[in-house]
Amino acid sequence: MSKKEETKEPEEILEDQEEVVEASVAEEEVPETSEPEKSELDLANERAEDFENKYLRAHAEMQNIQRRANEERQTLQRYRSQDLAKKILPSLDNLERALAVEGLTEDVKKGLEMVQDSLIQALKEEGVTEVSIETFDPNYHMAVQTVPTDDDNPADTIAQVLQKGYQLHDRLLRPAMVVVYS
Amino acid sequence: MSKKEETKEPEEILEDQEEVVEASVAEEEVPETSEPEKSELDLANERAEDFENKYLRAHAEMQNIQRRANEERQTLQRYRSQDLAKKILPSLDNLERALAVEGLTEDVKKGLEMVQDSLIQALKEEGVTEVSIETFDPNYHMAVQTVPTDDDNPADTIAQVLQKGYQLHDRLLRPAMVVVYS
Repeated sequence: MSKKEETKEPEEILEDQEEVVEASVAEEEVPETSEPEKSELDLANERAEDFENKYLRAHAEMQNIQRRANEERQTLQRYRSQDLAKKILPSLDNLERALAVEGLTEDVKKGLEMVQDSLIQALKEEGVTEVSIETFDPNYHMAVQTVPTDDDNPADTIAQVLQKGYQLHDRLLRPAMVVVYS
Repeated sequence: MSKKEETKEPEEILEDQEEVVEASVAEEEVPETSEPEKSELDLANERAEDFENKYLRAHAEMQNIQRRANEERQTLQRYRSQDLAKKILPSLDNLERALAVEGLTEDVKKGLEMVQDSLIQALKEEGVTEVSIETFDPNYHMAVQTVPTDDDNPADTIAQVLQKGYQLHDRLLRPAMVVVYS
């Protein structure tokens, strides 16, 4: 770009000089002979410049499209398991409930735990993890119940988790349902 | 692989184009001394044509990139659950095995069936279905064992399914393990 601008500058200067020279020599003859040629060249130059600009714009636009497509692809890849993962969470809840039933035989319990472990492992490999419950965070926790604070438990700390929350990388799949001190 | 090669093409074309641009700039500077006015016009016209071609090519390439990005996005969307679905299949196997255990209480059985149903439902909503076992198809079935044919069962028909196969839309996630008559 800058190269081309530099090369054009001297031409423009030359053209200006020619005009001045011709004007001083013979004023009457000037317009007929010089103008047609000059405007043809001007038009060609304009056309060249026009297409150059169009080309540069198209080129820049092409790079933008490619960049955007890459970003979109990365996002799609990163969160690709979101829908299926969300739909699997109730199965995990059901498994937990089944495991909480009294009087399970060792075989059944083992079987259920195997299913649970393999589900959790599959989700983990795809980037799904349990929401942390160390400190109460309204972005990740839904307070569905409160209990009074005491000396050991200040306000806005989590007393109990009623249902686990899950996130896919940084994106929340569902909040944890919690009881908070208040 | 082939997709990756395709996406590299525009870059290669661009590099070529850049070389051409530099070449045309260099040409411009050369002939000025011999035939100044005529060649100046010719060169300007050439330059205009050159950039017009480049612009048209860039424009066409831009549309190609956009089309390819759309196709890729659609494929990514369609098969987005592939990895997670594949990893969930062993959990389904484990559930089936757990349900086959003798002497389950009604509560446990109900719990297991609920988990199983919700998993199958979640997979189905994402396009995952069991591989059909009506007729033996080596693209979808793996014959791991054979039994002798008889009058009712001709060769290459399925005698038993040892492990279910699953597919995501038209794409196989894993083949069904079957016993075939032979």
